[in-house]
Amino acid sequence: MAEKQYKILLSEDEIPRHWYNIQADMPNKPLPPLHPGTKQPVGPADLAPLFPMELIKQEVSQDRYIEIPEEVREIYKLWRPTPMFRAHRLEKMLDTPAKIYYKYEGVSPSGSHKTNTAVAQAYYNKMEGVKRITTETGAGQWGTALAIACQMFGIECEVFQVRISYNQKPYRKALIESFGAKIYPSPSELTESGRKILAQYPDTPGSLGIAISEAIECAVQDENCKYALGSVLNHVLMHQTIIGQECLVQMEKAGDFPDIVIAPLGGGSNFAGISFPFLHQNITQGKKVRAIAVEPASCPKLTKGEFRYDFGDSAGFTPLLPMYTLGHNFRPAAIHAGGLRYHGASVLCSQLLKDGLIEANAIQQLECFEAGIAFAKAEGIIPAPEATHGIAQVFREAQRCKEEGKSETILFNLCGHGFLDMQAYMDYFDGKLSDHFLTDEELKSGLKELEGYPSI
Amino acid sequence: MAEKQYKILLSEDEIPRHWYNIQADMPNKPLPPLHPGTKQPVGPADLAPLFPMELIKQEVSQDRYIEIPEEVREIYKLWRPTPMFRAHRLEKMLDTPAKIYYKYEGVSPSGSHKTNTAVAQAYYNKMEGVKRITTETGAGQWGTALAIACQMFGIECEVFQVRISYNQKPYRKALIESFGAKIYPSPSELTESGRKILAQYPDTPGSLGIAISEAIECAVQDENCKYALGSVLNHVLMHQTIIGQECLVQMEKAGDFPDIVIAPLGGGSNFAGISFPFLHQNITQGKKVRAIAVEPASCPKLTKGEFRYDFGDSAGFTPLLPMYTLGHNFRPAAIHAGGLRYHGASVLCSQLLKDGLIEANAIQQLECFEAGIAFAKAEGIIPAPEATHGIAQVFREAQRCKEEGKSETILFNLCGHGFLDMQAYMDYFDGKLSDHFLTDEELKSGLKELEGYPSI
Repeated sequence: MAEKQYKILLSEDEIPRHWYNIQADMPNKPLPPLHPGTKQPVGPADLAPLFPMELIKQEVSQDRYIEIPEEVREIYKLWRPTPMFRAHRLEKMLDTPAKIYYKYEGVSPSGSHKTNTAVAQAYYNKMEGVKRITTETGAGQWGTALAIACQMFGIECEVFQVRISYNQKPYRKALIESFGAKIYPSPSELTESGRKILAQYPDTPGSLGIAISEAIECAVQDENCKYALGSVLNHVLMHQTIIGQECLVQMEKAGDFPDIVIAPLGGGSNFAGISFPFLHQNITQGKKVRAIAVEPASCPKLTKGEFRYDFGDSAGFTPLLPMYTLGHNFRPAAIHAGGLRYHGASVLCSQLLKDGLIEANAIQQLECFEAGIAFAKAEGIIPAPEATHGIAQVFREAQRCKEEGKSETILFNLCGHGFLDMQAYMDYFDGKLSDHFLTDEELKSGLKELEGYPSI
Repeated sequence: MAEKQYKILLSEDEIPRHWYNIQADMPNKPLPPLHPGTKQPVGPADLAPLFPMELIKQEVSQDRYIEIPEEVREIYKLWRPTPMFRAHRLEKMLDTPAKIYYKYEGVSPSGSHKTNTAVAQAYYNKMEGVKRITTETGAGQWGTALAIACQMFGIECEVFQVRISYNQKPYRKALIESFGAKIYPSPSELTESGRKILAQYPDTPGSLGIAISEAIECAVQDENCKYALGSVLNHVLMHQTIIGQECLVQMEKAGDFPDIVIAPLGGGSNFAGISFPFLHQNITQGKKVRAIAVEPASCPKLTKGEFRYDFGDSAGFTPLLPMYTLGHNFRPAAIHAGGLRYHGASVLCSQLLKDGLIEANAIQQLECFEAGIAFAKAEGIIPAPEATHGIAQVFREAQRCKEEGKSETILFNLCGHGFLDMQAYMDYFDGKLSDHFLTDEELKSGLKELEGYPSI
């Protein structure tokens, strides 16, 4: 009998040479972002103070493939190609006829997929002479990723971390500092918007919206400084498609092809990263891969939100984006999967859901943690709380396969490890976590201030 | 020009099929352990209450190679073979003509090399019908490794963690529980030895010696229970040789061979793991690899200890072992590299040092942290505090190569990541850490109670 293979590895020269841009293949192109004042489409000039021109071009490009610069591929080699695993032990534990594979992005310097876009963004900023980049971070994966990416290109990096996370996750702060970045709890005294909030609410825990405002305020005041975002935008999602493109090659090496691809969805870059290259196969090759985005039941924009124009941030500083949203004033419960506590879904993922090209499902957190622990026991990797949402969906599909007697092939993106999120597991073991069932009133609460803004 | 290669990977069928037993090749065999009462060599029967017979046989085997059981290799496939990296970015940062490689053991479920022996030990216990294993742990890597290994073989696992570490490292506790083991702060109320200490010193921070006593006490009281140790013993060191054996193949693939192999030394299993297969090349093939064990200057048994018989634990429960030691009552300073705070060196490493077959060096902790941070910035991996000792030595050798204009090849074992040790880096950044210069009195303090025990 042939020996079981657990890891499907690629060599460094198999790192993809192009990112895949799904805009080229979408039957309905995404609607344009609108200026909140004029309600007219936003142009490159509007974004130039924040982003380097090459990223603005990528944001609207219709080219199917965009070449990955050699310098970026060179840094990717530190951890890419990432391994894809056949989860033999998990399959046995679940007693399922399904074949389960997972792509593991936790081997990157930030411990998550975020480094893929951080390196690309730092590179394009460097090429255009940017000396300093500001950003916000919640749980800290994105801040860590941008810190190491900036370090590698000799760019200063300043991270505004939501104050409650800054206080709760001192290890993340230490890691970001180890990689050479400055990190501040937000709101801070460093910005006008931070000082304004602090004067009014000295004890505020902060929010991603406030942190974004501070990072943007810093960036626009210094002509050598730009701003970077870790998800939601088209170019960010595109940079992550290196994940799925590697999976295509790895699946071929495994002699298999997925029936289902699963990933959690916060802004959408993790889900896009693994699923878009398979959607390309659906659209152009007639494949029928089910791509399932999994969101927390406490922040269900895809399954219970409205498809409409909304702001990307809580404060209302960004352009209006056409997306599934719970409203930019929606306040999600304080679940530990901080990366999934975002009111909207990226424009690309929203349009694909609207057009029926992807599926979405919402799962409560206790089911997710239970699945995460079972996965750790079987496979030896403790998943980030965000990643457990994908795992819970895998467990549901594996159970369905068992009931239906089907040997489907399931692939999911294990987007990061949980070594820096163990507080979440401690709270779970201590019985401190509960599920959260949103009332209709809560569901509508975030949309109130959007009256008067264009619907779709 | 050929593209640079960063990762030298092996496929799963290249996992070694045998462990290497250096006892077969040692010019001077290690002296036998002695019973502390009779002063006579300890026999298998003396160890039978604690360890399964197969491990006791391995402890004294003179066979050069011992086959790795298929079930153990199957579990190794979850993370082995581990990658070996060429540190191109670090070489550039250090501006050295040296070629630097590192083997990365942090990809294992425990985040360190400890899982290699944990899986083997759990397997042999399972084969002999053991239902429950007890152990001690300090910083927690070993407890984590044994927890997941026992989980995989359906054995109950109970870990006594030194109380101060239990309180300081709640993430480790959560990880050990996630993998299904029970964990207690030591001293505990669960054992006679624990209760005795608590009655006398209710506020004691605990020690590895006390934790060993509690674990042993539990094991001997239950005929279905055995005890497991994560370093020091011959069989433990042998299980780790899978590291160096993989490196031999990886070096061949890289078209290179090391002039120097470096690893930190706490008990000796990390150092033995990477260096013994290269020492085999020295002894039998006439190679001249320098193998350098690095210890903290605050616990310098190899460079300032005595070669003599001493107890393996602080309480004096174990057989007397012939080793370099600072005395079992030596109290090392509270440095963050908990895995290196051990008074003695394993019998095998001690004999090899005595015979001039390996080298040793002691380094202060501030130099180690500085090197660790520089390494993280260059290579994107935050090293465990223990591992930074090897890195500091690599930096010294790289600097020497630069001064001498020599392009030597250096290989070191990056035995684990530091994601669960970020408190150490926080203290370093906050200026709370200092170097520790031992007085002669401190150096002799641990040896006092050894008068009357046999010297060598």
